[in-house]
Amino acid sequence: MVISHPQTLTLQPIENGAPSDDVRAFRRTLGQFATGITVITTNTGEKLTGMTANSFTAVSLDPPLVLWSIRKESGSLAAFLESGHFSINILAENQNTVSEIFGRPRDEQFSQVEWIPGKFGAPLFPGSIAHLECETHEVIDAGDHHILIGRVDNYARFEGKPLLFSQGQFGVPTAFLESPQPAPAAGDPRLDLDNEQTIFMSLLKAANQQMSQLFQEHRHQVGVTVATGRVLNQLTVRADNVEDLGRVAFLGENTVEDALIELAGQNLVAPQAEGKWAITAPGLEVQAALRRSAAEFNAQQLRDIPVEDLAAAQRVLRTLINREFNSESENK
Amino acid sequence: MVISHPQTLTLQPIENGAPSDDVRAFRRTLGQFATGITVITTNTGEKLTGMTANSFTAVSLDPPLVLWSIRKESGSLAAFLESGHFSINILAENQNTVSEIFGRPRDEQFSQVEWIPGKFGAPLFPGSIAHLECETHEVIDAGDHHILIGRVDNYARFEGKPLLFSQGQFGVPTAFLESPQPAPAAGDPRLDLDNEQTIFMSLLKAANQQMSQLFQEHRHQVGVTVATGRVLNQLTVRADNVEDLGRVAFLGENTVEDALIELAGQNLVAPQAEGKWAITAPGLEVQAALRRSAAEFNAQQLRDIPVEDLAAAQRVLRTLINREFNSESENK
Repeated sequence: MVISHPQTLTLQPIENGAPSDDVRAFRRTLGQFATGITVITTNTGEKLTGMTANSFTAVSLDPPLVLWSIRKESGSLAAFLESGHFSINILAENQNTVSEIFGRPRDEQFSQVEWIPGKFGAPLFPGSIAHLECETHEVIDAGDHHILIGRVDNYARFEGKPLLFSQGQFGVPTAFLESPQPAPAAGDPRLDLDNEQTIFMSLLKAANQQMSQLFQEHRHQVGVTVATGRVLNQLTVRADNVEDLGRVAFLGENTVEDALIELAGQNLVAPQAEGKWAITAPGLEVQAALRRSAAEFNAQQLRDIPVEDLAAAQRVLRTLINREFNSESENK
Repeated sequence: MVISHPQTLTLQPIENGAPSDDVRAFRRTLGQFATGITVITTNTGEKLTGMTANSFTAVSLDPPLVLWSIRKESGSLAAFLESGHFSINILAENQNTVSEIFGRPRDEQFSQVEWIPGKFGAPLFPGSIAHLECETHEVIDAGDHHILIGRVDNYARFEGKPLLFSQGQFGVPTAFLESPQPAPAAGDPRLDLDNEQTIFMSLLKAANQQMSQLFQEHRHQVGVTVATGRVLNQLTVRADNVEDLGRVAFLGENTVEDALIELAGQNLVAPQAEGKWAITAPGLEVQAALRRSAAEFNAQQLRDIPVEDLAAAQRVLRTLINREFNSESENK
């Protein structure tokens, strides 16, 4: 069996070469590997240190070893080397603010989050989906980083979905739907269910996935990436710096920088004082054109749907968006 | 500012302890960190080797270093040590079959996929979202694994979304919606758009996210995980082994094993000949009850929606599911 690929996939690379030729392009390529997000903390006895990292990986089950890497230039390196231990918090989908707080060195980080001291005194964040408390096992010199291998002393797993970083964007995982089973046989209790109602949620999921896929192809065709589109959108409201643009657009800072470089090359944005960026007059025109194009995509998808069906569908979707979890009424 | 957590989040761990106490629980905890999926290949000159791995991580930009780890017991280790080079294919969302083919040693793996030889002769898969061709830079002994650090000679980035592995499930990333911008000012061309149509796709996405979140809470309340639910569902159709259950349910094999152990402990499944598992009579009852519970969740969410609105919404969703990408008609 040979795997076939949809025709819409481009088999020519977007960019390629030797890493030293274009370090930003090389970094974008590395960013094709999706990861969770962790905040790794330590306590030297004199001070607390924490930093956001997505270089975590599990290494060995027996003995229990994990690793992550830290820039040799990082101001936090000394604390991790001195303390001899670290704690890994794997962040949940609603902890992107925590990721941001520890994304760069700043004052008073630990007064901005809830935390409790773990076994070694290093901060653990309630609400994370896992805690791993480690003793530093080995430090390995690796180019511009040190790899820290930790031996896990204690683990804890919690309910919740992970925060995700993929292709420069923050998000959450969506699991594939399981393969459908054959229709139930006569006499099967499943036949007694109201099938039309049962499958409504599956219809909703499938329609959303299909529209998302088509919109991705549309965006590719008009030559805009998620990052350049979002940066332009946000700059129509106010001039802003890289950090704040990343926060409101749920993008990594390197991704925002890449987008600004690309947009500046087309004269769509321009640097201002104090590290801020502003949209230019041509940028405003392009942004308006992109919005019209997105609206046309919407209209095109809805083209032959009767207006009363569309109105009814909107009422249904709005009702569902406002539903809240109610365990009492659920059990009737 | 202190981050608050929704009341529905359990702050007590599901499981915790020292790794040696329960190695499966420790592995589930490590699995809270979401990852992409790679297939790493090499060519000794005499034979081709490839294996699925999610332990990939970027280490250093200058020099360009990446790493992954391989079990010391792996039959593929010798080939990677001998060849002195390896190529990393970061898989796209539609390459889960490739992940499966290289998920365990078997014959004729490379006749089952399309591939081209790279710079060092190691196979590269068209359709992957990134290729990284590396020379082995260092091999580090780390517990029951070796860490292989590679120096990247050549990179290539391609269009596409990543295949994702998160909490034992295969899936894709869903990016957060960007923060809303203020309403456009008078005279803004955006005012000319049909707003009701423009926002339909956003309504669809938001409704799907809300229902997905509520269903997750519902499932937690009835005490079933995605994995145990899917394994029970699939076993109603036929007895099956771990590998095939993983394939049809889009679950990792360790996750299927964990689910089978849990279900067997409740007498809901039982081992058969040839490594297969079958559902028991109590298992069939529980599976039917879970289906009824899911149907009741659906009915409860749709409780006060007029039947004609629901029918119209279903027509709209079915129309959208069947849309295909058509660049011609899109541009009218």
